[in-house]
Amino acid sequence: MQAIGREWAMTEQQIAKTALKQAYQRETQALMQETRDRAGGVLQLEDVWRLHDFLSARRHDIDGKYDDDHSSLVFVLARLLKEGWLHADELSGISPDKCAKVSALSRM
Amino acid sequence: MQAIGREWAMTEQQIAKTALKQAYQRETQALMQETRDRAGGVLQLEDVWRLHDFLSARRHDIDGKYDDDHSSLVFVLARLLKEGWLHADELSGISPDKCAKVSALSRM
Repeated sequence: MQAIGREWAMTEQQIAKTALKQAYQRETQALMQETRDRAGGVLQLEDVWRLHDFLSARRHDIDGKYDDDHSSLVFVLARLLKEGWLHADELSGISPDKCAKVSALSRM
Repeated sequence: MQAIGREWAMTEQQIAKTALKQAYQRETQALMQETRDRAGGVLQLEDVWRLHDFLSARRHDIDGKYDDDHSSLVFVLARLLKEGWLHADELSGISPDKCAKVSALSRM
């Protein structure tokens, strides 16, 4: 966890951290399953390169997504909520204004 | 097939072309099988990224390997022979001096 400013209380930081971990677990488990499924369907060389393209995109995406710096936390949580890796009730305990921001951003 | 110089007779060109196709078939079939095998063994995220690294390397390798320009044909055939994707008897009909070059290079 990088330095987090005063606007995130310690308990909020902990809740956000736990939520990120949970989302990461879900997303990476789904990626592993999809990798197995896609590879199982490899019947021609083009399928191999499509799998490679898919993994390149997913790796780039996941590598940059789970930034827990306080300055981007609202955006990160909103994106995960939008993508379905995070559930709104997992943010319970975070201040209503932050939750409202996350929720609003997740609908954009 | 790109322009092939006078030093490769038409029949030699055809033999080399057929040999390249055969090697390509073998190598890509093996790649598809290995992709399925590796993906089937994905148990953690690290395995996904290892598979991605593997496919990146294989794609780069295969993309650049099957150059049938006459100027590089001896080297391409030698490499395929060395890697086991091509068998020496599949070059039968190509002039002895070229076969000797391919064979010598494949042992380097």
